[in-house]
Order: sequence, then C-alpha cells, then structure tokens
Amino acid sequence: MERGAYLLTTNTFEQKLAEFKEYLKTMKGYEEAIGLMYWDMRTGAPKKGIATRSEAVGVLSGEHFKMSVSDKMGEMLEYFSAEAAFSRLDRVDRKIVTETKKEYDRSKKIPPQKYKEYVVLTSKAESVWEEAKEASDYAKFQPYLEQIVAANLEFIELWGYEGHKYNTLLDMYEPGMTVDKLDQVFGALREKVVPLLAAIQASPYKPNTQFLKQTFEKEKQKQFSLFILKQMGYDFEAGRLDETVHPFATGLNPGDVRITTRYLLDDVNSALFGTIHEGGHALYEQNISADLIGTPLCTGTSMGIHESQSRFWENMIGRSRPFWNHYYGDLQRQYPGQFDQVSVEDFYRASNEVKPSLIRIEADELTYNLHIMVRYEIEKALFSESVRVADLPELWNEKYREYLGVTPSNDGEGVLQDVHWAGGAFGYFPSYALGNMYAAQITRTLRKELPAYDELIGSGNLIPVKEWLSDKIYQYGKLLTPTEIMTEVTGEELNPDYLVHYFREKFSDIYKL
Amino acid sequence: MERGAYLLTTNTFEQKLAEFKEYLKTMKGYEEAIGLMYWDMRTGAPKKGIATRSEAVGVLSGEHFKMSVSDKMGEMLEYFSAEAAFSRLDRVDRKIVTETKKEYDRSKKIPPQKYKEYVVLTSKAESVWEEAKEASDYAKFQPYLEQIVAANLEFIELWGYEGHKYNTLLDMYEPGMTVDKLDQVFGALREKVVPLLAAIQASPYKPNTQFLKQTFEKEKQKQFSLFILKQMGYDFEAGRLDETVHPFATGLNPGDVRITTRYLLDDVNSALFGTIHEGGHALYEQNISADLIGTPLCTGTSMGIHESQSRFWENMIGRSRPFWNHYYGDLQRQYPGQFDQVSVEDFYRASNEVKPSLIRIEADELTYNLHIMVRYEIEKALFSESVRVADLPELWNEKYREYLGVTPSNDGEGVLQDVHWAGGAFGYFPSYALGNMYAAQITRTLRKELPAYDELIGSGNLIPVKEWLSDKIYQYGKLLTPTEIMTEVTGEELNPDYLVHYFREKFSDIYKL
Repeated sequence: MERGAYLLTTNTFEQKLAEFKEYLKTMKGYEEAIGLMYWDMRTGAPKKGIATRSEAVGVLSGEHFKMSVSDKMGEMLEYFSAEAAFSRLDRVDRKIVTETKKEYDRSKKIPPQKYKEYVVLTSKAESVWEEAKEASDYAKFQPYLEQIVAANLEFIELWGYEGHKYNTLLDMYEPGMTVDKLDQVFGALREKVVPLLAAIQASPYKPNTQFLKQTFEKEKQKQFSLFILKQMGYDFEAGRLDETVHPFATGLNPGDVRITTRYLLDDVNSALFGTIHEGGHALYEQNISADLIGTPLCTGTSMGIHESQSRFWENMIGRSRPFWNHYYGDLQRQYPGQFDQVSVEDFYRASNEVKPSLIRIEADELTYNLHIMVRYEIEKALFSESVRVADLPELWNEKYREYLGVTPSNDGEGVLQDVHWAGGAFGYFPSYALGNMYAAQITRTLRKELPAYDELIGSGNLIPVKEWLSDKIYQYGKLLTPTEIMTEVTGEELNPDYLVHYFREKFSDIYKL
Repeated sequence: MERGAYLLTTNTFEQKLAEFKEYLKTMKGYEEAIGLMYWDMRTGAPKKGIATRSEAVGVLSGEHFKMSVSDKMGEMLEYFSAEAAFSRLDRVDRKIVTETKKEYDRSKKIPPQKYKEYVVLTSKAESVWEEAKEASDYAKFQPYLEQIVAANLEFIELWGYEGHKYNTLLDMYEPGMTVDKLDQVFGALREKVVPLLAAIQASPYKPNTQFLKQTFEKEKQKQFSLFILKQMGYDFEAGRLDETVHPFATGLNPGDVRITTRYLLDDVNSALFGTIHEGGHALYEQNISADLIGTPLCTGTSMGIHESQSRFWENMIGRSRPFWNHYYGDLQRQYPGQFDQVSVEDFYRASNEVKPSLIRIEADELTYNLHIMVRYEIEKALFSESVRVADLPELWNEKYREYLGVTPSNDGEGVLQDVHWAGGAFGYFPSYALGNMYAAQITRTLRKELPAYDELIGSGNLIPVKEWLSDKIYQYGKLLTPTEIMTEVTGEELNPDYLVHYFREKFSDIYKL
C-alpha cells in the first residue's frame, strides 16, 4: 500500500472502523499462535525442534511487529485519533484506539536497527545470565547488564519521561505508576512490616512445619490441585493444567487459558499454592468479556492487577483459616495417614510460616514485599544513574541485610537470582508488591459487599467470590486502567494500609503477638 | 510494494536469491505455526477456545495464502524461472523454483472468490457428512457432494488436464500419476489378489485370533508402543507420542515430528500397529536433510511414497515373522500371563489374518487394496462424468460385492464411511494402495542390498534398515519425484508384481496354500 492511500479512500467511517478492527484481529491471531508456540516449547516440544521453532516464532513476531508499526496502522490511528472520528467512537473503541496508539508511538520512537540489536542483546544476555547464575559469576554477566541498562536509558530519552526516568519503565507494566507513588506506598509498607517482622521473629510461638515435608505422590498432588482449581471455578473446558519447571499461566483467548505447575515430592504445599496462584491469573483471563475477544483490550489491565488476583487466590483465600477449616478434611483424605496427628490449626499455621530468606520466589507472604523493595531501590538507582552496574552485588547484599537481616553467601543466591534484568524487564518487579497491596484493598471491599464472605469460604463455596471479582474486575480486561479499577471497586486509589492491617491481624493471631 | 518493483531492483542475483529464500522461510514459519495449532486442537486444546482458535488459524492461513500468490511471489518466480537466472541455480534451488511455481500457477488459476466459496463449502460439508454418516442418510450429504464434484470439475477446466480429467487431481497427491498407469497397476494387482483371496478363504487353516482380544492396560500398551518406536529408531528428542481419536503424524520440522495413537483396551494390536504405522511416516520426516529445512522441499515427496513408509514399517517389518521371533518375548513379558499359552507362530498368524470386511481402516494388508480400488473406480467415473453423485450408494455396494464379496447394510458403513470426499480430497485414495506397491518393491531392493535383512530384523536390529531408507529416500524430501525415487532406488518404475509376489509368499505360508 502506498503511504497515504488509506486516508485517501472514500470508505465510510463504518467501513474504516471495520477494517481497523479486522486489522487488530489479525494481530491477535498472530499473538495467539505465538502464545501457543511458547506454551508448547515450555511444556513438551521436542528439543531438536527448538532451533527451527525459534525461527518460526521470530518470523511471526516480526510480521506482528511490522503490522504494529506499518504505515497503514499509522494512518488508521491518525484517522481515528482525530476528533472528527474519535468523537463518533463508543467507549470500548475509544479505548482500543488510545491503547493501540500508545503502543504504536512507543514502538515508532525506537529506530528499527536499535530495537533489533536490543532483542539480540537480551536474548544473548539471558543465556549468559543462566551460566553466570550457575557459576555465581557476576563479572561474566556484568558487561551485558551494563549494555542493557545503557540501552534502556537511551530508549527512555527517545520515549520521553516525566519526573524520574524510571517512571517511563514503570508505566509499561503499571500504567500511571510513578516513583513518587511507589516511594510513598513502599515507604509506608516497609515502616510497618519491618517491626511486625521483628515481633514475629521474637515470638516463642513458632509453627511446627515438619509435617509439610513428608513424601507426597505426584499423582495425588495433581488430583488435589485439580480439585481445588475446580472449587475456585477454573473452567476446565476453557483451560488445562500441565507440568513445567517454572509454573506460569497463559491466556491464548478467554476460552483457552492454560496453567502449569511443578510438583515437589517432599512438599505438600508447593504445587498446591503454585497452582492456586496461577489459577488466580487464569480466572482473570477466562472471565474477560467475550465482547473484547480479538481486540487489544482482551487481557489483564496491568501486571499489578494481574498479580493481585493470583495473590488474592493464593494468600487471602488459599492461606486463610476458613479455607482450611473446610478443605483440610479433603487434604487428610487425599494423603491417608499422613496428617492423622496434625490439627487443622497446626496445618494452617505451618502454611503461614514467616521466615526471612534469600530467595524471592520461596519467600512467605510478609517478607516477599521486602524482596521486591530491594529490587525497586536498585532499579531506581540505576535509572537515576546514582549507582554503577559494577556495584550492584555489594548494594544488593547491603539491602538484604538492611531489609531482611540475611546475607547471600554468593551472587548466585544474591543479585543473580532473577532472570528479569537479563531480559531487560526493568520496572516489572514492583508489580508483585503492588499485587499484594491491591489484593488486600480489594479484599476489604469484597468483605463489605459479600458480608457472609468467611462463611462462604468456610463452607467451600468459592464461586460467589469468583463471580464478584468477574463482575467488578475480570470482565473489563484492559478497558479500565488500574487506577480506575481500584477507584471504582474500592472507592479509593491504592492504599497500602489495607495490606498492613491484613498482615497485622493475620500474623498477630498466628504468632500470638 | 508496487507491481514490478521487484524486477526493477538493482539487486544482484545473489541478493535476489537470498530474498526469495527468506520469503519461502517466512512461509514455512506460518506452516509450522498452523501445523502446531492443528496438532494442539486435536490433542487437547480446551473446547471453549476452539472457535477463536479456528479464527486465528484462518488468519494465518490467509496470510500464508496471500504470500503464495502475491505479486512479489509472481515476480520472483518470473525472474528465477527465466533461463538467465535458472541456469545459475544449483539442483536444489532449481527444484525449489519449479515446485513453488507449480503451486503458484495452480493457486493463481482459481479466482479468489471461487476458492473462498469452496473452502466454506467443504468446511460445511465435513460437518454435514459427520451427521449423515451417523444417521446413515446419504440424501443429506448428496447435495454437498454434488457441489464439491462440480467445483472440482470447474477447477480442472481452469487448471487444464491431459488425457483423463481425473489425472489433474491424481497429480496433486502423486506427481506424475495418471489413470492409464493406475488402470494398469491396479488391474494387474486385482487380477492376482482376487484369486489369492479366494484361496485364503477356502483354506481350512484359519488362524485363531481370540487371544488378541483380551483386556490390555492402556499404560502397558503405551510402554510397549514406545519401546517399539525406540527400536525403529524414532528419535524422541525430535518427536513425541500423544493420544487422539484418529491417529496421525505431523512433521512441524525435522526436529519436531509428532505422532498420535489410540488405545483399544480389548485389542493388543490396534495401538501397536497404529503406532508403528505413524512411526513410519515420522521416520521419513525426521530424516529429511537439514539442508532442506525452511524450504518447500522439506516434506515427503508424495502421499504414495509417504504411505509406502508407514506401510513398510507396519506390515513388512511389524507383521513379519522375524520381527515377532525377536519381539514376542518382550510382548509376553509386557502382559504377564496373558500369552503364556500362545506360541509365537500363532501370534504371528493371528496378526496376519485375512478377512474381507466393510470398513477400509479396519482391513487387513491384502484386502485393503480392494477397498482402495472401489474408491478409485468411483472417483474415475465421477470425473469422466459417467456416473451421477446420486447413484454412488448403489455403485459402491455393487463394487464391494464384486471386489470383496461383502455388502454394506447401510450407507454409514458404505459410501459414507470416509471423510475424504467431504473435504474435496479426490485423487487421494490411490496413494494408500500405491504405498503398498512401492513398499513391496522397495523391500525387494532392500533385501538385495542388506543381505542379512531377515537376520537383522530377527535379532531386533532395525536401525540399519532405517539408515538405508534414510540414505535412499528420506533425506531427499521433495527433491526427487516419486518416479525418480523408485527408479533410482529400485532400478525400475512402479511395478505391482513385487506386492503380488510378497502377498503370495506370505499368505501361502500362513494359510498353507
């Protein structure tokens, strides 16, 4: 197509709109194919096919990217963003145009050659990171990380920024989030969590957790995970559960939202809570309104809101007393003889043990946020250029001592533990802690609007909870921003006090503070 | 791109060739994605995602088709087909150009609107066929079949034909195959098979097959199937085995060739021979030369040659006496107690029972070819317009009586039994019988070139056989035509006498004729 050809057509507004939507649907078709190809590579694609497969993924990703920045896309967006056409769009279509334009503008600002080099760099960095982590050899990874940070600083200049440079990165994962807001909420949270943690550590009432570490047959774990997913309202006609080393959820379309889990034979809780977590992500994606299928709005609105749902189901539901009051009998029957001597109260307390540790992904509900704050402080410092990449290991260890009171014995269990930076995903980590705060705040409203909340959970009736969340959050996909969701559902913007309140109540009880 | 822009570029021959190959590789990327999407839909995609998935497949197929008939493709082919450029291509690239041009010409001759209507028609016809078969109601399916035959007659006029109109359809599945050749080889085959079948039916030495029909645990069947696949040299790092209602093999790339099977709990042989059959297809695709990856030559050369490999492994190997002399002990150990009273000879004979039946996919090795000949005669008559679609049930039943001596009690087990015609796949059926003839002819050469053939099989050493086939056939993919393969490997073109000879020798022995 010639540049300008689209704008010159004599098609009506309606014809142009239909053409625009068809174009977006084609892009979604690519996304579904790419999503399936990744799912397949992680769940069981034969390894000798991976090289050719990766090229095929590259082909489709390339075609998808070309469509996203094509002249035609530019002209369609020019037409629909202009007042004359925009004013004739309904609410959903307006949001589709603004979201698509945001992506388009972001992509267009990076010169294609630079972007290509960056993709190659991060792809290489991810494999170097794997070796560096294995060998606890930060020096090996450092030059890659330096280049990745430098590239991101360059991108930020091209994209533009307001206030802190890091804001531009935060906005990619949590639209509207800024350093100012995060400093405030993380500060407030840390101020309350640190003394609470100290009190917990000083408590003589430590839960016994030994019985969690027996041997549990994989097939039985799987059956129990499937049973709980069913209870949550996960729709097995619109999803499936598979096994992977690193669990994940992937929404190909609302009728096909897959989750994976990992079974540890010596731990009764790992696969279970992992499955509930991914199940929470999946409930979100399964319940997006069918009206949004084939549009860019057919996905969760942000990483933080998405994580609020996985954490809500994992922690606020799965690690709650009413939940175990109801389901503990099922668990006991699932593993005959293995929990005969364990009371439901002991099991509940063990499943909520708080213990500062080195590894984020193994952290408990309370200390998890401190792991995130360490990463947040480091990312902020990197993008205000107040710390050098070379100094990260030292800074990391110092922050861990300060926030968690533990010190890594090597960089493999320290600064090299997460893959995120190797992939250039700066600004992503805060989503995890935001998810916890959102989840507590949403839970408070949920309790008000479903007054029998504890009784519902305590009688194994989780469906009304899923339906309330679908009604208030899930159905909207990306139609509402995170701030709109929070304001419309809870009546106020993000407020860390609800998480603090939830922690205090829960852990004062468990640790008899 | 403007029409003509490609030919006008000042790019060198080498640059143009690289661009052409990149273009073909992109198309292969689409094919891999589409192949995976189909595999996934058949092996376990959640049913509520199927509608959106089908649209995504439609999107990718549409883009792939557009590339295959684009102006750019036309211009690239124009450039490379012309003597100046063609003479500079090596053997592989020449074949790539001629194969691609053949496809291009075929696609361009059908007006896009007509093609679209045909896709809708056959897609609708397939679901109508399913209901019609279920209800044994030919009248329901007949109008669709009439339209599909009419559309194919129209396509044949557009494509052109030499001799019989049906030749054009045959050529799509078996390049170079004609009615004249098929009449000759099928005639010769039928002339010998019919009296052999009569002799077998008259023989008092019928194998006892009762012991094949005990109860066999699925997991044990699966383990044994996996074991035999491994023995054949199927590479599990380049493939996997899954379960489906209708078994199939799909080559996404030579490093990822998947097969599926179906386990019947009351039949020890069904899944086993089904797996060996699909495994034969898979060996072909796994062993195509890596040089051909990303090109249109990276697939089997024809349906007939492909089928020769599945049938070779299933029948010439899997249903042979030396094979069972070696593996029967493994089978007995796999199902403890279930074959204690059964000798290897009895098992071998039972696995080779010959019995005329109504259903093609359940037919034995000998009578299978007669089922194919019935379909061939009918297709030939349809495209010489010497029979009306309305008369097919009667013609079908008459041919079954004549060729196999059995008569369907309804059209569900008669003319409606196969899905092929609903999908418009006329010309496909002969491939199955061609596969049998090719397989016997290839086996004869193989026996000459590997003189210890029987000893190898009889000692469970199947790898040299796989390697010989890889060397002679598999590695070439579509680089050689079926006729070239047969001539270069066996020294002559297709000759039905080898299959006749193989049948006579095998069944005279089994039935003591």
